[in-house]
Amino acid sequence: MSPGPLRIVVLLFPRVTQLHFTGPAQVFSKFPDTEVHLAWHDLDPITTDAGWCIVPTTTLDACPQADILFVPGGAGAFDMFDDLAALEFLRVQSRKARWITSVCTGSFTLAAAGLLTGYRATSHWASLQMLEHFGVEPTSERVVRDRNRITGAGVTSGIDFAFTLAAELFGDDEARKIQLAIEYDPEPPFDHGSPSKADPEAVKSIIAATENLRMARVRTSASALARAQPSA
Amino acid sequence: MSPGPLRIVVLLFPRVTQLHFTGPAQVFSKFPDTEVHLAWHDLDPITTDAGWCIVPTTTLDACPQADILFVPGGAGAFDMFDDLAALEFLRVQSRKARWITSVCTGSFTLAAAGLLTGYRATSHWASLQMLEHFGVEPTSERVVRDRNRITGAGVTSGIDFAFTLAAELFGDDEARKIQLAIEYDPEPPFDHGSPSKADPEAVKSIIAATENLRMARVRTSASALARAQPSA
Repeated sequence: MSPGPLRIVVLLFPRVTQLHFTGPAQVFSKFPDTEVHLAWHDLDPITTDAGWCIVPTTTLDACPQADILFVPGGAGAFDMFDDLAALEFLRVQSRKARWITSVCTGSFTLAAAGLLTGYRATSHWASLQMLEHFGVEPTSERVVRDRNRITGAGVTSGIDFAFTLAAELFGDDEARKIQLAIEYDPEPPFDHGSPSKADPEAVKSIIAATENLRMARVRTSASALARAQPSA
Repeated sequence: MSPGPLRIVVLLFPRVTQLHFTGPAQVFSKFPDTEVHLAWHDLDPITTDAGWCIVPTTTLDACPQADILFVPGGAGAFDMFDDLAALEFLRVQSRKARWITSVCTGSFTLAAAGLLTGYRATSHWASLQMLEHFGVEPTSERVVRDRNRITGAGVTSGIDFAFTLAAELFGDDEARKIQLAIEYDPEPPFDHGSPSKADPEAVKSIIAATENLRMARVRTSASALARAQPSA
């Protein structure tokens, strides 16, 4: 790990699902002696999936080396398949990063960069199986750790992911203090947050929409990756 | 309610605890036919408690009438006590809003605007009792509804608040669909998210820090409000 503060580098991009980033970011903001860098091609405000904008803090070129490399997901995570500079940024950063991490469909961006080949990883439940196309072992758990990769499942799992990371970095006691400070004592008014608990029609409708949107791009990009890295 | 799309107006301010807003915002972004407006004095990026910036979408002067008025919290919520234009904005908006809402210490901003006088409300557990100074009945629940006021407790409770609102506006089925879509099936790795479950020393240390920071401001502002509204 580099000397000085812990550096968390987040790849931010247009159409990011903002809670993938902002959920973990609230936990990161309580980490001792930690800098969070939001990196993109330029410093113009980035439009999130919610319509409003977050401002990057650094560019891909100027970004310092990450101790923790983190990729959120969202519709824009699939646009990254064609962004060779962003994928190269992830590959270069990954060489010296201590942890390489994602939430939700951010695992597809990591996978497209070749950084999850041969690893167990998770993603949003409706996209999870598609990870197979990249040589990744889809793993249906809320937070999955395999060697120095930590991936979180859908959207809100980012908060659970961040506490897993907090415990790993600073110990259980510090993670518990942060949990109390941000009153993370969830009480969902309904119990319908995973496909195993949900109405099957609602599950089917989300899967159908997801597959239509994404399968073609996943197949094309996975083939391109396989050609580029025949050993993977 | 105004004709056309549902309008959610968020008062955004410097040093907002970003997850107070961004947690509910992810749920709002799935509401049918809904606009979310982020209002502040000007359109310059606003620095959140996490250091990075969110860009307002409208000014206090140009903001349309809210159907849902929403105030997040954070250290900056207490700075609002001296921001007479922001408090007046909330009062004017509140007259025609269908729901007047907050998360965490955003209830203090609503209270300072006189909008919770005589209501039951909640806040972050470490600040909750101070609501009494504003003539508000502190209520230790994760989401509190009293007439058309809905307040959420600390930080992460914003997500539970937003689902309560979703069910109120669109029915339980729609709320459940959103829950599945954003995989809100929390699995905190620890069970330390409320004072009743936490180490007493950790609780004491957060309360001490909070009281030192805030009590003087709360007392002064509550006195000013009482003088301005002797009937309250």
